[in-house]
Amino acid sequence: MDDCIFCKIISGEVPCYKIYEDEYVLAFLDINPVVNGHTLVIPKKHFVNIFDVDDFYLEKVIAAIKKIANHYNQKFDGINILNANNKSAQQSVFHLHFHISPRTIDDGKDFWPYKVVLDKTDLKTMAERLKL
Amino acid sequence: MDDCIFCKIISGEVPCYKIYEDEYVLAFLDINPVVNGHTLVIPKKHFVNIFDVDDFYLEKVIAAIKKIANHYNQKFDGINILNANNKSAQQSVFHLHFHISPRTIDDGKDFWPYKVVLDKTDLKTMAERLKL
Repeated sequence: MDDCIFCKIISGEVPCYKIYEDEYVLAFLDINPVVNGHTLVIPKKHFVNIFDVDDFYLEKVIAAIKKIANHYNQKFDGINILNANNKSAQQSVFHLHFHISPRTIDDGKDFWPYKVVLDKTDLKTMAERLKL
Repeated sequence: MDDCIFCKIISGEVPCYKIYEDEYVLAFLDINPVVNGHTLVIPKKHFVNIFDVDDFYLEKVIAAIKKIANHYNQKFDGINILNANNKSAQQSVFHLHFHISPRTIDDGKDFWPYKVVLDKTDLKTMAERLKL
Protein backbone atom coordinates (compact mmCIF):
# COMPACT_ATOMS: atom_id res chain seq x y z
CA MET A 1 0.00 0.00 0.00
CA ASP A 2 1.35 3.37 -1.04
CA ASP A 3 1.11 5.11 2.31
CA CYS A 4 2.12 2.18 4.52
CA ILE A 5 5.52 2.57 6.22
CA PHE A 6 5.97 -1.19 6.51
CA CYS A 7 5.25 -1.69 2.80
CA LYS A 8 7.95 0.92 2.14
CA ILE A 9 10.35 -1.06 4.32
CA ILE A 10 9.47 -4.24 2.41
CA SER A 11 10.09 -2.55 -0.95
CA GLY A 12 13.37 -1.08 0.29
CA GLU A 13 12.20 2.52 -0.09
CA VAL A 14 12.68 2.93 3.65
CA PRO A 15 15.72 1.22 5.24
CA CYS A 16 15.58 -1.13 8.20
CA TYR A 17 17.85 -3.20 10.41
CA LYS A 18 16.96 -6.58 9.02
CA ILE A 19 16.92 -9.66 11.25
CA TYR A 20 15.27 -12.27 9.07
CA GLU A 21 13.72 -12.52 5.64
CA ASP A 22 12.13 -15.20 3.51
CA GLU A 23 9.79 -15.10 0.54
CA TYR A 24 6.76 -14.17 2.66
CA VAL A 25 8.00 -12.62 5.89
CA LEU A 26 10.33 -9.83 7.00
CA ALA A 27 11.64 -9.21 10.52
CA PHE A 28 13.55 -6.09 11.54
CA LEU A 29 14.50 -4.17 14.65
CA ASP A 30 11.93 -1.73 16.00
CA ILE A 31 13.33 1.76 15.43
CA ASN A 32 12.09 2.70 18.92
CA PRO A 33 13.30 -0.28 20.96
CA VAL A 34 12.22 -0.67 24.56
CA VAL A 35 14.37 -3.73 25.13
CA ASN A 36 17.53 -4.88 23.40
CA GLY A 37 16.56 -6.84 20.31
CA HIS A 38 12.99 -5.48 20.11
CA THR A 39 11.89 -6.91 16.77
CA LEU A 40 8.88 -6.62 14.47
CA VAL A 41 7.73 -9.53 12.32
CA ILE A 42 5.50 -8.72 9.35
CA PRO A 43 4.04 -10.43 6.27
CA LYS A 44 5.44 -9.12 2.99
CA LYS A 45 1.94 -8.67 1.67
CA HIS A 46 -0.18 -5.87 3.09
CA PHE A 47 -2.78 -6.95 5.62
CA VAL A 48 -4.21 -4.48 8.12
CA ASN A 49 -4.20 -6.89 11.06
CA ILE A 50 -5.22 -10.38 12.15
CA PHE A 51 -8.80 -9.77 11.06
CA ASP A 52 -7.92 -9.68 7.38
CA VAL A 53 -4.68 -11.67 7.05
CA ASP A 54 -5.08 -14.85 5.03
CA ASP A 55 -4.25 -18.25 6.53
CA PHE A 56 -1.24 -18.79 4.31
CA TYR A 57 0.59 -15.61 5.34
CA LEU A 58 -0.39 -16.00 8.99
CA GLU A 59 1.18 -19.48 9.02
CA LYS A 60 4.35 -18.10 7.47
CA VAL A 61 4.49 -15.27 10.02
CA ILE A 62 4.03 -17.54 13.05
CA ALA A 63 6.61 -19.98 11.69
CA ALA A 64 9.10 -17.10 11.36
CA ILE A 65 8.26 -15.92 14.88
CA LYS A 66 9.04 -19.39 16.21
CA LYS A 67 12.32 -19.49 14.28
CA ILE A 68 13.39 -16.07 15.57
CA ALA A 69 12.22 -16.90 19.11
CA ASN A 70 14.40 -19.98 19.23
CA HIS A 71 17.35 -18.04 17.86
CA TYR A 72 16.89 -15.25 20.41
CA ASN A 73 16.48 -17.73 23.25
CA GLN A 74 20.14 -18.65 22.78
CA LYS A 75 21.11 -15.02 23.37
CA PHE A 76 18.49 -13.89 25.91
CA ASP A 77 16.47 -15.62 28.66
CA GLY A 78 12.96 -15.52 27.22
CA ILE A 79 10.65 -13.58 24.95
CA ASN A 80 7.27 -11.89 24.91
CA ILE A 81 5.11 -11.73 21.82
CA LEU A 82 2.60 -8.91 21.52
CA ASN A 83 0.18 -7.95 18.78
CA ALA A 84 -2.52 -5.28 18.53
CA ASN A 85 -5.52 -5.25 16.23
CA ASN A 86 -7.53 -2.08 15.63
CA LYS A 87 -7.02 1.39 17.05
CA SER A 88 -9.03 0.44 20.16
CA ALA A 89 -6.36 -2.16 20.92
CA GLN A 90 -3.60 0.46 20.51
CA GLN A 91 -2.55 -0.65 17.02
CA SER A 92 -0.59 2.28 15.55
CA VAL A 93 0.78 0.94 12.23
CA PHE A 94 -1.96 -0.63 10.16
CA HIS A 95 0.07 -3.41 8.62
CA LEU A 96 -0.11 -6.66 10.61
CA HIS A 97 2.90 -6.95 12.90
CA PHE A 98 3.99 -8.95 15.93
CA HIS A 99 6.43 -7.55 18.46
CA ILE A 100 9.10 -9.90 19.75
CA SER A 101 10.60 -8.56 22.97
CA PRO A 102 13.62 -10.46 24.27
CA ARG A 103 13.85 -10.61 28.04
CA THR A 104 16.70 -11.20 30.44
CA ILE A 105 16.62 -12.47 34.02
CA ASP A 106 15.85 -9.63 36.39
CA ASP A 107 15.67 -7.07 33.58
CA GLY A 108 13.29 -5.07 35.73
CA LYS A 109 10.78 -4.80 32.87
CA ASP A 110 7.10 -5.51 33.23
CA PHE A 111 5.33 -6.67 30.11
CA TRP A 112 2.27 -7.86 31.95
CA PRO A 113 -0.41 -5.17 31.66
CA TYR A 114 -2.99 -7.07 33.68
CA LYS A 115 -2.85 -5.76 37.23
CA VAL A 116 -6.46 -5.73 38.26
CA VAL A 117 -8.76 -8.71 37.91
CA LEU A 118 -12.36 -7.83 37.09
CA ASP A 119 -14.58 -7.94 40.11
CA LYS A 120 -17.73 -10.07 40.21
CA THR A 121 -17.36 -11.19 36.62
CA ASP A 122 -20.01 -13.66 35.51
CA LEU A 123 -17.83 -15.98 33.45
CA LYS A 124 -20.68 -18.36 32.71
CA THR A 125 -22.75 -15.63 31.06
CA MET A 126 -19.70 -14.29 29.25
CA ALA A 127 -18.85 -17.76 27.90
CA GLU A 128 -22.41 -18.21 26.65
CA ARG A 129 -22.19 -14.85 24.90
CA LEU A 130 -18.85 -15.53 23.26
CA LYS A 131 -18.82 -19.25 22.57
CA LEU A 132 -18.15 -20.21 18.95
CA MET B 1 1.54 -33.68 31.86
CA ASP B 2 0.36 -34.80 35.28
CA ASP B 3 0.98 -31.59 37.18
CA CYS B 4 -0.07 -29.15 34.44
CA ILE B 5 -3.27 -27.23 35.17
CA PHE B 6 -3.97 -26.70 31.47
CA CYS B 7 -3.57 -30.42 30.74
CA LYS B 8 -6.13 -31.02 33.51
CA ILE B 9 -8.49 -28.57 31.82
CA ILE B 10 -7.99 -30.38 28.50
CA SER B 11 -8.73 -33.76 30.08
CA GLY B 12 -11.81 -32.36 31.84
CA GLU B 13 -10.41 -33.04 35.31
CA VAL B 14 -10.57 -29.28 35.94
CA PRO B 15 -13.59 -27.39 34.54
CA CYS B 16 -13.40 -24.33 32.34
CA TYR B 17 -15.63 -21.84 30.56
CA LYS B 18 -15.10 -23.13 27.05
CA ILE B 19 -15.10 -20.74 24.10
CA TYR B 20 -13.83 -22.88 21.26
CA GLU B 21 -12.57 -26.40 20.72
CA ASP B 22 -11.36 -28.50 17.84
CA GLU B 23 -9.24 -31.61 17.60
CA TYR B 24 -6.01 -29.78 18.41
CA VAL B 25 -6.88 -26.55 20.20
CA LEU B 26 -8.90 -25.44 23.21
CA ALA B 27 -9.90 -21.87 24.12
CA PHE B 28 -11.50 -20.89 27.41
CA LEU B 29 -12.05 -17.82 29.56
CA ASP B 30 -9.22 -16.79 31.86
CA ILE B 31 -10.39 -17.46 35.40
CA ASN B 32 -8.82 -14.13 36.41
CA PRO B 33 -10.09 -11.83 33.64
CA VAL B 34 -8.76 -8.30 33.36
CA VAL B 35 -11.08 -7.41 30.49
CA ASN B 36 -14.43 -8.85 29.51
CA GLY B 37 -13.85 -11.88 27.33
CA HIS B 38 -10.22 -12.42 28.41
CA THR B 39 -9.49 -15.76 26.72
CA LEU B 40 -6.66 -18.28 26.67
CA VAL B 41 -5.88 -20.35 23.59
CA ILE B 42 -3.83 -23.53 24.08
CA PRO B 43 -2.74 -26.59 22.11
CA LYS B 44 -4.30 -29.82 23.36
CA LYS B 45 -0.88 -31.42 23.47
CA HIS B 46 1.54 -30.31 26.17
CA PHE B 47 4.25 -27.92 25.02
CA VAL B 48 6.04 -25.67 27.48
CA ASN B 49 6.08 -22.62 25.24
CA ILE B 50 6.91 -21.41 21.73
CA PHE B 51 10.43 -22.79 22.02
CA ASP B 52 9.29 -26.39 21.99
CA VAL B 53 5.90 -26.37 20.23
CA ASP B 54 5.90 -28.24 16.94
CA ASP B 55 4.95 -26.50 13.70
CA PHE B 56 1.74 -28.46 13.28
CA TYR B 57 0.24 -27.47 16.64
CA LEU B 58 1.48 -23.90 16.35
CA GLU B 59 -0.34 -23.57 13.02
CA LYS B 60 -3.52 -24.95 14.55
CA VAL B 61 -3.26 -22.56 17.50
CA ILE B 62 -2.72 -19.45 15.37
CA ALA B 63 -5.59 -20.48 13.06
CA ALA B 64 -7.87 -20.78 16.10
CA ILE B 65 -6.67 -17.41 17.39
CA LYS B 66 -7.61 -15.83 14.05
CA LYS B 67 -11.01 -17.49 14.11
CA ILE B 68 -11.74 -16.33 17.67
CA ALA B 69 -10.36 -12.86 16.93
CA ASN B 70 -12.75 -12.41 14.03
CA HIS B 71 -15.64 -13.66 16.11
CA TYR B 72 -14.79 -11.31 18.99
CA ASN B 73 -14.34 -8.37 16.62
CA GLN B 74 -18.09 -8.51 15.97
CA LYS B 75 -18.73 -8.07 19.70
CA PHE B 76 -15.86 -5.78 20.74
CA ASP B 77 -13.75 -3.11 19.00
CA GLY B 78 -10.37 -4.78 18.75
CA ILE B 79 -8.12 -7.33 20.40
CA ASN B 80 -4.64 -7.71 21.82
CA ILE B 81 -2.71 -10.95 21.65
CA LEU B 82 -0.03 -11.59 24.26
CA ASN B 83 2.24 -14.55 24.89
CA ALA B 84 5.08 -15.15 27.33
CA ASN B 85 7.89 -17.66 27.01
CA ASN B 86 10.08 -18.58 30.00
CA LYS B 87 9.95 -17.31 33.55
CA SER B 88 12.11 -14.32 32.61
CA ALA B 89 9.32 -13.22 30.26
CA GLN B 90 6.75 -13.56 33.05
CA GLN B 91 5.36 -16.92 31.87
CA SER B 92 3.49 -18.37 34.85
CA VAL B 93 1.80 -21.51 33.47
CA PHE B 94 4.23 -23.68 31.59
CA HIS B 95 1.90 -24.94 28.90
CA LEU B 96 1.99 -22.78 25.76
CA HIS B 97 -0.85 -20.24 25.80
CA PHE B 98 -1.84 -17.07 24.05
CA HIS B 99 -3.97 -14.43 25.76
CA ILE B 100 -6.70 -12.82 23.68
CA SER B 101 -7.85 -9.59 25.29
CA PRO B 102 -10.89 -7.96 23.68
CA ARG B 103 -10.84 -4.17 23.74
CA THR B 104 -13.54 -1.55 23.48
CA ILE B 105 -13.27 2.07 22.40
CA ASP B 106 -12.12 4.21 25.29
CA ASP B 107 -11.97 1.27 27.68
CA GLY B 108 -9.29 3.11 29.60
CA LYS B 109 -7.00 0.08 29.54
CA ASP B 110 -3.35 0.23 28.58
CA PHE B 111 -1.93 -2.95 27.13
CA TRP B 112 1.19 -1.27 25.79
CA PRO B 113 4.02 -1.91 28.24
CA TYR B 114 6.59 0.01 26.26
CA LYS B 115 6.82 3.49 27.75
CA VAL B 116 10.50 4.26 27.54
CA VAL B 117 12.54 3.90 24.39
CA LEU B 118 16.13 2.78 24.95
CA ASP B 119 18.57 5.62 24.80
CA LYS B 120 21.55 5.59 22.44
CA THR B 121 20.82 2.10 21.18
CA ASP B 122 23.19 0.93 18.48
CA LEU B 123 20.69 -0.83 16.23
CA LYS B 124 23.29 -1.63 13.60
CA THR B 125 25.43 -3.58 16.06
CA MET B 126 22.35 -5.24 17.55
CA ALA B 127 21.14 -6.32 14.10
CA GLU B 128 24.54 -7.80 13.30
CA ARG B 129 24.45 -9.70 16.58
CA LEU B 130 20.95 -11.07 16.09
CA LYS B 131 20.60 -11.55 12.33
CA LEU B 132 19.58 -15.04 11.26
